[in-house]
Amino acid sequence: MPDRLTKNRLCLHTVTTKPWSLEECCRHYAGAGIAHITVWRNVLEGIALPRARKLFADHGLAVAALCRGGFFASSEASQRRAALADNRLALEQAAAIGAPTLVLVCGADPGQSLDDSRHQIRDGIAAILPAAESLGVVLAIEPLHPMYAGDRSAVVTLAQANDLAQFFDSPWAGVALDVYHVWWDPALQQEMERCAKAGFLRSFHVSDWKTPTADLLNDRGLMGEGCIPLRSLREQAEANGFRGPVEVEIFSTEYWKLDQEIWLQWIIEAYIEHC
Amino acid sequence: MPDRLTKNRLCLHTVTTKPWSLEECCRHYAGAGIAHITVWRNVLEGIALPRARKLFADHGLAVAALCRGGFFASSEASQRRAALADNRLALEQAAAIGAPTLVLVCGADPGQSLDDSRHQIRDGIAAILPAAESLGVVLAIEPLHPMYAGDRSAVVTLAQANDLAQFFDSPWAGVALDVYHVWWDPALQQEMERCAKAGFLRSFHVSDWKTPTADLLNDRGLMGEGCIPLRSLREQAEANGFRGPVEVEIFSTEYWKLDQEIWLQWIIEAYIEHC
Repeated sequence: MPDRLTKNRLCLHTVTTKPWSLEECCRHYAGAGIAHITVWRNVLEGIALPRARKLFADHGLAVAALCRGGFFASSEASQRRAALADNRLALEQAAAIGAPTLVLVCGADPGQSLDDSRHQIRDGIAAILPAAESLGVVLAIEPLHPMYAGDRSAVVTLAQANDLAQFFDSPWAGVALDVYHVWWDPALQQEMERCAKAGFLRSFHVSDWKTPTADLLNDRGLMGEGCIPLRSLREQAEANGFRGPVEVEIFSTEYWKLDQEIWLQWIIEAYIEHC
Repeated sequence: MPDRLTKNRLCLHTVTTKPWSLEECCRHYAGAGIAHITVWRNVLEGIALPRARKLFADHGLAVAALCRGGFFASSEASQRRAALADNRLALEQAAAIGAPTLVLVCGADPGQSLDDSRHQIRDGIAAILPAAESLGVVLAIEPLHPMYAGDRSAVVTLAQANDLAQFFDSPWAGVALDVYHVWWDPALQQEMERCAKAGFLRSFHVSDWKTPTADLLNDRGLMGEGCIPLRSLREQAEANGFRGPVEVEIFSTEYWKLDQEIWLQWIIEAYIEHC
């Protein structure tokens, strides 16, 4: 029963086992009975995309998403143009490796207002949406935790991401929900319902919030180690119609130091017990 | 002109110059022409409250607030009762030193749901409101940044704090707005307007958000060092009727290492230039 659950629904982000190459990720994930992988672009460096695609097929791994595009916000026009080109490249990569979704970390620039960043994000998504449609890749807008509003994402609530998806009103513009970023939100329940019922919800990421948290970026907890009600959030997403995999995305300086095979076993056990 | 501005509006939290005793804070703040002080309870330890009150009077310092009460949320009933007793003590202290306001950091318990914590917070405020009224001290509900939702405050948005103030509908229940905690919020403008126009806004705290931020607790920036639009937020508060002092509350391991007299001058200059 745990095996079947694991195989059917568990997805790992390659960044969760950051020390591993793409080939190592594929081999170990498949060896552990995992059926889904979300690919971070760094592990594609130096690998021909058809070769990557064949790796996934050979290991029986379905690609859930490519991480990540976005970073549309900048006070510099040249930077914004470069971001659009990079997003088009990311869409090409996603299509080439068979990823149905590109996750967007939308960006923020501490040198300008959040309002400006938010407008640039909307414009940026609008600019790449035609490419997403023609390549058949969904853009998944990910709200980030407000502690990243300075320089990573001016989109900090699920309501904002839902508003954006609603504004575009396209099957190619959806939402990536990472519980780490949104668990604190008093409006979470209603916005999750709105997100899933409208068909916006394309990705569901889990990890846990540790108290204390030692580092803003790389101290995420393993599921069960913190205070996020993971099972109830997953059940809520599913009650509202979500049927995708449950993606484990953990940035952790501490866990990346472990033997990654042991770490992978911990993840699987924590997933079964707490998700 | 800067001098007059400074004297009229600037308020320092004693924690901002943490290495100083209460007497040192009073002497140096008054010596720099500052007219307001917000007192953290740690500096009252070992000092008779009438003596503290006389210190403020002798130095021409108006007490803006006492920090802090709250921490109502706990899965343990004994802990919740202890919190109520501590809040009643804090109210007595506030009244004794002439502080018109007690700032509430409402609390959270990673061992229970945010919903449970939120209910306990409402019950806790209800329980101490009669004491606040009889002592003539306003309870100022402070929304904290969502990165503190694990263990410090289940109240993480200005909307929540406004909802609580509205629920109590009492001149003794208001809101403390710290820009560091709420600057990221897409609903900030409308909720600030609601807060100030309803007469809830009792305290206005400034500091700045640094990118990167090295520590979740003690790496706040000096005004102008980060990306919070301080002047525009102050002007917005005032446009909606706020007339209180502008309180500088900076937790910073880095700045606490400085000669605090130099640090105080930096604060005054930054306040004049950026607030």
